Amino acid sequence: MNTPAPELSISTWINSHAPITLAELKGRVVVIHAFQMLCPGCVSHGLPQASAIHAAFPQTELAVIGIHSVFEHHEAMNAYALKAFVHEYKIAFPIGIDTPDTVSAIPLTMQSYGMRGTPSLIVLDRLGMVRLHHFGRLDDLRLGALIGQLLAESPTPKEQKIEPAQDLNLGASCTTVSCQIR
Amino acid sequence: MNTPAPELSISTWINSHAPITLAELKGRVVVIHAFQMLCPGCVSHGLPQASAIHAAFPQTELAVIGIHSVFEHHEAMNAYALKAFVHEYKIAFPIGIDTPDTVSAIPLTMQSYGMRGTPSLIVLDRLGMVRLHHFGRLDDLRLGALIGQLLAESPTPKEQKIEPAQDLNLGASCTTVSCQIR
Amino acid sequence: MNTPAPELSISTWINSHAPITLAELKGRVVVIHAFQMLCPGCVSHGLPQASAIHAAFPQTELAVIGIHSVFEHHEAMNAYALKAFVHEYKIAFPIGIDTPDTVSAIPLTMQSYGMRGTPSLIVLDRLGMVRLHHFGRLDDLRLGALIGQLLAESPTPKEQKIEPAQDLNLGASCTTVSCQIR
Amino acid sequence: MNTPAPELSISTWINSHAPITLAELKGRVVVIHAFQMLCPGCVSHGLPQASAIHAAFPQTELAVIGIHSVFEHHEAMNAYALKAFVHEYKIAFPIGIDTPDTVSAIPLTMQSYGMRGTPSLIVLDRLGMVRLHHFGRLDDLRLGALIGQLLAESPTPKEQKIEPAQDLNLGASCTTVSCQIR
Repeated sequence: MNTPAPELSISTWINSHAPITLAELKGRVVVIHAFQMLCPGCVSHGLPQASAIHAAFPQTELAVIGIHSVFEHHEAMNAYALKAFVHEYKIAFPIGIDTPDTVSAIPLTMQSYGMRGTPSLIVLDRLGMVRLHHFGRLDDLRLGALIGQLLAESPTPKEQKIEPAQDLNLGASCTTVSCQIR
Repeated sequence: MNTPAPELSISTWINSHAPITLAELKGRVVVIHAFQMLCPGCVSHGLPQASAIHAAFPQTELAVIGIHSVFEHHEAMNAYALKAFVHEYKIAFPIGIDTPDTVSAIPLTMQSYGMRGTPSLIVLDRLGMVRLHHFGRLDDLRLGALIGQLLAESPTPKEQKIEPAQDLNLGASCTTVSCQIR
Repeated sequence: MNTPAPELSISTWINSHAPITLAELKGRVVVIHAFQMLCPGCVSHGLPQASAIHAAFPQTELAVIGIHSVFEHHEAMNAYALKAFVHEYKIAFPIGIDTPDTVSAIPLTMQSYGMRGTPSLIVLDRLGMVRLHHFGRLDDLRLGALIGQLLAESPTPKEQKIEPAQDLNLGASCTTVSCQIR
Repeated sequence: MNTPAPELSISTWINSHAPITLAELKGRVVVIHAFQMLCPGCVSHGLPQASAIHAAFPQTELAVIGIHSVFEHHEAMNAYALKAFVHEYKIAFPIGIDTPDTVSAIPLTMQSYGMRGTPSLIVLDRLGMVRLHHFGRLDDLRLGALIGQLLAESPTPKEQKIEPAQDLNLGASCTTVSCQIR
């Protein structure tokens, strides 16, 4: 079942002059890539895929947002280090730092979306509904098909049969592919 | 502008018990991959991509068809050789041998579609209209997006604004990527 | 134990003005890549690796030779088809067609070397001794190390401790990697 | 011309119980991979190559050493962050942190070797002479050949013609491949 996407909780934005809210992105398809800068599967696959999506589709129709959701090695992946990382890897799309929790190691956006680890891929339709919530690697063909489907949908709500959110998780484990919350 | 897809002209089918016509595929999205078994770009990229599409989407919604459109080295790429090739490469989707012309080196389906060489990728919507005619390599993300869009479209014709056929040709040359008609 | 390499039995040479014998290559390291043009593992890995070796080392020190050792689908992989293949794949090093046997499906050079299938990689030292006989894929690092070692050896025979021939076979099976004699 | 390798200047060792000196590695071939944890070309190519070398050759014959030579973003790539990086990327060979200079941004080992940036690959023969000093990417085949040659050389010094150190630098620029000192 589709659910409305919770608003993001971001402490700092990189590559954006102003804070970004999901509310203002209504009408566009939104691809959210949650990552950690020291997560091998994010660096080798997830971030390049997000950059390719950012380059392939018009920004007036689709927004790509990176969320730095750190749940381990917090000191190593601080804001200063992330900015160096974003600079060296030449990442062009906006990246928000997931707001740290004061009691839990897991940051707030990661909690509200119930993410299992990084990379996590969350895709919203033009109405702001979660249509994909995927942990681990997802191939370009299937992800492209979902994007194409959502781009083709009308931006105005009406009586329509909405497909259930697909979880195409192919059983990624916590190795070179992803980092799972332990 | 979209145009109705001309019917295929096939002399022999492999991986199919009966001849296949585009007419009977109406209602489904159709991905046609035209190749030559000795075309390096077809072997390294086009055919694996076609197999991935065949595996990723339900056959009741999308049909993948290979067309062996030989326009050079005809003797080397005869039906016997093609069958050995299909067996060794474990290709699972139906493949039609493009009917040779009696006067031209270019076979009939290749002529009627005006293909420039191999690999050529032709995508039809559920109504049988040509929505993509691409020569050379096309990335999974963009191709997936088109497939997702076409799968989302209604199978019944109605007054709709149809997007012009995209030619996403990225300027492929006749090297490792493709073989162009000389 | 190292053994002297049996002389090649070749019916036709491609990319060579004259027949090539191992006898005349004494003094050079020789890398023999046995393949079939319809063997997927040969096309995707073995032949590109052989081309890379051909480009990386001086021909006065190292010779690369391809052997087309057909043991199945003989009609599909005849001399005419092989020439088209070599042309389309732009293979630059000499290729010999392994002489067909009149009674067995396995050609003569393949028999005399006891090859298990394709791709097979055979490396000779400067004295013409077999120092590697490998069936399946071998990574560039290990193969490069053997080549570097053999290039460093003196071309004149003398009392030296010769390392036993390495069989670095990593257990390749008969799928996308290789074709095994059944 | 070959030159004796200057001794390393290391402030902290990771993956090693005791400090490592080049002096004690005499008799073995030594492969030194200088990197930065936020250098994309190091992460995607250099470190995996170093790990492959570490796995392919016996440690009694060849030692792989990583040197973390930070010349930019020093705060982001501190010892704590490096340890998290080494843990997440499952790097198994010893890594030394290049001793920071008090006046220059360039650390001491990087200075004494005259490295141009990261990744830099330095290969020593069994006598401790620099036989390769390469900035940027180097393919496995050529690097493997050098390793094979050096492994074949006698560990005892004698009158021998030593090949000049090869600089196989293929003109890497400061993009996805490497980070150059500015």
